[in-house]
Amino acid sequence: MAKRDLTPKSESMSKWYTQVIQQAKLADYSPVKGCMIIRPNGYGIWEHIQKNYQIMLDNMQVRNGYFPLFIPMSFLEKEADHVEGFAPELAIVTHAGGEELTEKLVVRPTSETIMYHMYSKWVQSHRDLPIKINQWNNVVRWEKRTNFFLRTTEFLWQEAHSAHATQDEALDTMYEALESYRKIAEDFLALPVVAGKKSESEKFAGADLTTTIEALMPDGKALQSGTSHHLGQNFSKKSAFDISFQDSDGVTQFAWQNSWGLSTRILGGLIMTHGDDEGIVIPPKVAPIQVVVVAASKDEKTAEAVTTLTSILKESGIRTEKNSDTTTSLGWKLNDAELEGIPIVLVLGQRELENGEITAHIRHSQEKQTLKIASAGSTIATLLEEIQKAMFSKALEKQESLTFEASSYDDFKTIMKENRGFIRAFWCESATCETAIKEETKATTRCLPFTDTKGTILEEEGTCIKCGQPAKHRWLFAQAY
Amino acid sequence: MAKRDLTPKSESMSKWYTQVIQQAKLADYSPVKGCMIIRPNGYGIWEHIQKNYQIMLDNMQVRNGYFPLFIPMSFLEKEADHVEGFAPELAIVTHAGGEELTEKLVVRPTSETIMYHMYSKWVQSHRDLPIKINQWNNVVRWEKRTNFFLRTTEFLWQEAHSAHATQDEALDTMYEALESYRKIAEDFLALPVVAGKKSESEKFAGADLTTTIEALMPDGKALQSGTSHHLGQNFSKKSAFDISFQDSDGVTQFAWQNSWGLSTRILGGLIMTHGDDEGIVIPPKVAPIQVVVVAASKDEKTAEAVTTLTSILKESGIRTEKNSDTTTSLGWKLNDAELEGIPIVLVLGQRELENGEITAHIRHSQEKQTLKIASAGSTIATLLEEIQKAMFSKALEKQESLTFEASSYDDFKTIMKENRGFIRAFWCESATCETAIKEETKATTRCLPFTDTKGTILEEEGTCIKCGQPAKHRWLFAQAY
Repeated sequence: MAKRDLTPKSESMSKWYTQVIQQAKLADYSPVKGCMIIRPNGYGIWEHIQKNYQIMLDNMQVRNGYFPLFIPMSFLEKEADHVEGFAPELAIVTHAGGEELTEKLVVRPTSETIMYHMYSKWVQSHRDLPIKINQWNNVVRWEKRTNFFLRTTEFLWQEAHSAHATQDEALDTMYEALESYRKIAEDFLALPVVAGKKSESEKFAGADLTTTIEALMPDGKALQSGTSHHLGQNFSKKSAFDISFQDSDGVTQFAWQNSWGLSTRILGGLIMTHGDDEGIVIPPKVAPIQVVVVAASKDEKTAEAVTTLTSILKESGIRTEKNSDTTTSLGWKLNDAELEGIPIVLVLGQRELENGEITAHIRHSQEKQTLKIASAGSTIATLLEEIQKAMFSKALEKQESLTFEASSYDDFKTIMKENRGFIRAFWCESATCETAIKEETKATTRCLPFTDTKGTILEEEGTCIKCGQPAKHRWLFAQAY
Repeated sequence: MAKRDLTPKSESMSKWYTQVIQQAKLADYSPVKGCMIIRPNGYGIWEHIQKNYQIMLDNMQVRNGYFPLFIPMSFLEKEADHVEGFAPELAIVTHAGGEELTEKLVVRPTSETIMYHMYSKWVQSHRDLPIKINQWNNVVRWEKRTNFFLRTTEFLWQEAHSAHATQDEALDTMYEALESYRKIAEDFLALPVVAGKKSESEKFAGADLTTTIEALMPDGKALQSGTSHHLGQNFSKKSAFDISFQDSDGVTQFAWQNSWGLSTRILGGLIMTHGDDEGIVIPPKVAPIQVVVVAASKDEKTAEAVTTLTSILKESGIRTEKNSDTTTSLGWKLNDAELEGIPIVLVLGQRELENGEITAHIRHSQEKQTLKIASAGSTIATLLEEIQKAMFSKALEKQESLTFEASSYDDFKTIMKENRGFIRAFWCESATCETAIKEETKATTRCLPFTDTKGTILEEEGTCIKCGQPAKHRWLFAQAY
């Protein structure tokens, strides 16, 4: 399908967003309220995110498993903050197998409770720890207002859950997981992010500490893109799931726990950050198809050259497809590839072929390059790496141009009104000021940025931009998706 | 964990089955009735099945996508046989987001209806066909009696759904999918199967034709291990989902459709077929860990040799882990590996190391071999291939020893009473005889075997073993799981 009637991104990003997703066949509306269909073009990107993140999970010695979709309501109630946070969003199964159920079942909004019920059975001794299990699954949180990828009633994610003998080990693992998310976002999706800790009001329901990576969209709104939580002993304590063990001295201890999750939401970040008026733009590392090869003429010799080049590139490990559809024109094929965000289109023309050359259309920069066929494998591999880097740099530049320092509340309000973006500002950490700022400017605390991968926080002397009281930290504010 | 109190498989396969699954940490009971927990040891096998089957799906040009977990009840009702087949097994969401839903939502038991609703929107012209989309997902069918892997309320599977312009193309794809299942079962899980078509009473609710692969368990009961359905135009017709298209002459046609699915059930087949009194036995091709390397002594030199050998094997592409736990004995480690079914354990002893040798403990045959360290990479690779073949041969021999021909109904009944197994017998294809045979012997029609991969069926002249009327085909009967 060629692009048609695509609202320019600069005119209305929200209109462009829903249109481009459907036109590029990434996703479609479903007949079930709030749910979406992820079409192969969109799912393929998710699969490449999965493959790359799986390698990181393996390196963290996290193993995959699978826990039930249904959770007894009583399980959620065992951790007070947890059930309070999730109760309004639950989908509930009341009937099954033709009968009314005696205990209603919740469709999992997240799996802490069902997993920790099992952890409690599996953990007896310190030798059973740590446990680190991940699942790639679907979860359901009933949402009133939904949007493709960014907020859907059902979504796909990975949720990893660990239990440790000591809090230090748990915290190390939490920061390790956060760093893995930063890598996925920056090195694979070319999305620059700020890593930091959440405020009390923004943390996960049931966590002692929530850490996050926050990306900034071109419209100046922030996208929470992955969170890593330290649950302390909130779920492991006796009154909750009782995950206890004998330590090496034979003393009973309760496990220290974490959970971390990354969802299909991040695809929304990718689309908004990199897309342009012509369609989406996929970073090479997560592009299901990195190169499309097309012929500029219909002769047999060119067709053969297309096939040969496709094979050569595939053998070099480049995800390549040829488009030999004889019923569509070259222009149509280029349009299609542009809309769908394929990083490189290689066009083979008769005259160039005689010179041993091809033309590379580079999606993200809209530039053309003439390349030698003889060295295509290595040239294209290098080009893909350059594209990946250039996409990140461009996104980082945009993020930096939309990152502000506010020294007064007037400043803050002006920035939110005129530019919108990340605002770094001192905050006294009182809920009162946080709520007032949100109500008056729509900006929420996104995080308190870390200065390294170990969770170090810069201490400064300042005054809260809202109340003027002493404040030790400069928080990152933004309107959030 | 070392094995303990494992009922011998020969004494009671059903007791052995539930015990070995828990002891080898493949799965565990869940607090939700009928659901199970798939633990990392079990899930790892499923992941290797997925990886291998994904390659086949790619070759069939099937693309992955994702469709909603919830389906409006009205969708199921659009195909009469479909809803009749699934109605008794449905789990139903009546409340969500704190409110009662106006239209009740079914938790998908399978996704024909929701997918074909979308296919209907996406297909306009013959150029939009074929569509072939697969999803790896969870489905729910409320079951009264459940058993690890074999029958659980929620299970994991892949379901692929295609729509074609012609019936011939659809049928070719159906047989191609069935053949892919035969390959997965025989070449990867070392499970010999019989491929054939289902009887009218046993076919999928909504299909015109169901084809199946049937494995035989050591207790003489059959396990339906994967099914590929031709749905005809039952779902595409105007009164159902209206998947219509303009053919090249501009005439409106309705699509021809297939669906095919393979689930975690097949893990049950693997466990029962290959396991023995000492634990489970995993075929090398789907073993998450193919080789474990352990030291027979605690000196540093041996420990170094263990590390070196592990690296060498990993570099040769063999999935290898070392077990260097200093708190457990060699015997304990061997016991563990035996229970968990690791194909090969390599033991490094001080004296052997001096001769450049190691001892390989081969799980399936319980044999030991002395190998040269210098050529370990290639020797082990060859050994794994030999093990894979030997496991298949052994299972095939067992299947053949339990496959009978019945020339009379008395014969049939005696076989079912004394041996149990696959019985090949003429049947007139009337539902009356089929039901009577099932009631009197517990044997059901498993399939009418194909003589090739194109669905060819042998025509013979015979008489129905039950009623004595003329019968053209020798069907395969067995008691089923």
